[in-house]
Amino acid sequence: MTAARKAEGGLPVVGIVIGDPCGIGPEVVAKAWHTGLLHQHCRPVLIGSAAVMAQAAAIAGLSMTVRLLDAPEQGSGRPEVMDVLEPVAFDMAWVQHGQEAERAGWASGEWLRYADRLARGGTFRATVMGPISGVAMKMAGTLDAIPSTRPGDAYLLLRSAPLMIAHLTDHIPLREVSAQISQDALETLIRLIDRSMQQWGLPSRRIAVAGFNPHAEGMEESNAIAPAVAAMKREGIDVTGPISPDSVFRHCIEGRHDLVIAMYHDQGHIAMKTWGFSGNSVVFAGLPYVHTTVAHGVAHEIAGRGCADHQMMLNAILNAACLAGGHGFYQ
Amino acid sequence: MTAARKAEGGLPVVGIVIGDPCGIGPEVVAKAWHTGLLHQHCRPVLIGSAAVMAQAAAIAGLSMTVRLLDAPEQGSGRPEVMDVLEPVAFDMAWVQHGQEAERAGWASGEWLRYADRLARGGTFRATVMGPISGVAMKMAGTLDAIPSTRPGDAYLLLRSAPLMIAHLTDHIPLREVSAQISQDALETLIRLIDRSMQQWGLPSRRIAVAGFNPHAEGMEESNAIAPAVAAMKREGIDVTGPISPDSVFRHCIEGRHDLVIAMYHDQGHIAMKTWGFSGNSVVFAGLPYVHTTVAHGVAHEIAGRGCADHQMMLNAILNAACLAGGHGFYQ
Repeated sequence: MTAARKAEGGLPVVGIVIGDPCGIGPEVVAKAWHTGLLHQHCRPVLIGSAAVMAQAAAIAGLSMTVRLLDAPEQGSGRPEVMDVLEPVAFDMAWVQHGQEAERAGWASGEWLRYADRLARGGTFRATVMGPISGVAMKMAGTLDAIPSTRPGDAYLLLRSAPLMIAHLTDHIPLREVSAQISQDALETLIRLIDRSMQQWGLPSRRIAVAGFNPHAEGMEESNAIAPAVAAMKREGIDVTGPISPDSVFRHCIEGRHDLVIAMYHDQGHIAMKTWGFSGNSVVFAGLPYVHTTVAHGVAHEIAGRGCADHQMMLNAILNAACLAGGHGFYQ
Repeated sequence: MTAARKAEGGLPVVGIVIGDPCGIGPEVVAKAWHTGLLHQHCRPVLIGSAAVMAQAAAIAGLSMTVRLLDAPEQGSGRPEVMDVLEPVAFDMAWVQHGQEAERAGWASGEWLRYADRLARGGTFRATVMGPISGVAMKMAGTLDAIPSTRPGDAYLLLRSAPLMIAHLTDHIPLREVSAQISQDALETLIRLIDRSMQQWGLPSRRIAVAGFNPHAEGMEESNAIAPAVAAMKREGIDVTGPISPDSVFRHCIEGRHDLVIAMYHDQGHIAMKTWGFSGNSVVFAGLPYVHTTVAHGVAHEIAGRGCADHQMMLNAILNAACLAGGHGFYQ
């Protein structure tokens, strides 16, 4: 976030991609919007289809109107009016609740690309990704519209206070992780996480770096992790490690650290999910804007019934708004 | 455990190795013995030094006598008399509380070897290992007396109800784990765990096998884990998997499984310790007898002061007794 954009003041404009229209995305977005909480923390704008959102409001039994916007700045600011941007024409015949549909996957991809473009251009201070279908997007060839979690690109951060975990690597075979752990890659991530936490408004930034091997004793620790931590300490960052992977997450829960950097997907995810992840915060760090999403999927089995829980979606939007405003996570 | 040994009836004889004499082992063993609980569940016999145990009782402020046994069957059965077997001569000058001492490491090794021999011979139905010092044993060249956790030899099992985890591999570099995951190795472990749980008196034996890669999708899953699980199912074992590593431990906590087989040290240890391991059960599976130990170390910083907590040692002994008797874990 540049100083110029911060100085614009007022509530940040947050672009919310409604997610795969065959899943529960549109209905949980409608419910979240209907709470009236969004407008207290941001100027929300939906990206998707006005017709889909009108249908979603009806499915959820909510009395709301939908307005198609010409420009992101035209939001009405009223919780009973859902403001929708339609970057591409959408045919309601493509909505098949509970199905993997190629056209839905195509639309999801186009909506995500549009949101990214407007965020990079400065219109959105934050974006939120509703639940998308990887299968449908693969069918449509639009998977690349999802922020990639390759090192150097974007990093997955999970938080369920007091546990907060950023991942150096994501969905790669475990036997390939060792080769990805370099001093350079780690220094990039440590710097990025420290800067991001600062921009998000988190005053305490005690970063712990997990080791890779049992008891943090191995080649990866001595060749890459320890030197990276030492170098980042010299730059003034409050970072420690490598710490034994089986202890560092418990230490974070006990308040010794504010964030743990995990070396691989399961190292962080096992800790988070075993301890009890309610899915309240999923953030992509490393993009030039704040980007959050939900931990749940499209939930095809209940899509279109109006019974889906909107709490995670509400949290994802409020977190995006609060982090973009530099106010920390939504409480 | 053979049927013949089971049929002997009565309380099982349990051999308790007192641990490194420079650490807290002897004092927590004395405190555990003094509770009087051991004799309700087994016929306990200490393996170590009578003089060390007399000193430990004094350090702990306990009014107990020590009796040197000629044979393991001569235990008095009285909680106020500690029965000690001395397989090797021990010089009290070797006790330096809070120090790594080569002679202490040598004695620890000799005591462990003696306990193993008597257990394999059928005298002990179970053995318990007090906290030993890997450093001291390395100095003395007796490290090999500790049961090895190489696949096919013995396997580390941690339990903090309702979570119970057996580990296929233990302290090896994470990048070398993939090569250790074979269909054969897994089948051996699944069969062994099912049989062990049965012998220990655990009627519900729903075994889950964790995957190796994120979401349990990879080469190791398709080449080794899935075929092993399928083959063991055909043998009638209640086993499922591979299950996504970041979900399977939470499922176990929620009661869907009774035990999870982890592919590597940190997979299981991160789950156990992050969730909250009070260290109440550490069992080596795969030996021809029941063998338990404590999760804590020699605690040199407080050794010799009498303040060390004996709860884990007490649990380790009671678990050994109850499992050896086929009565499940001590409640």
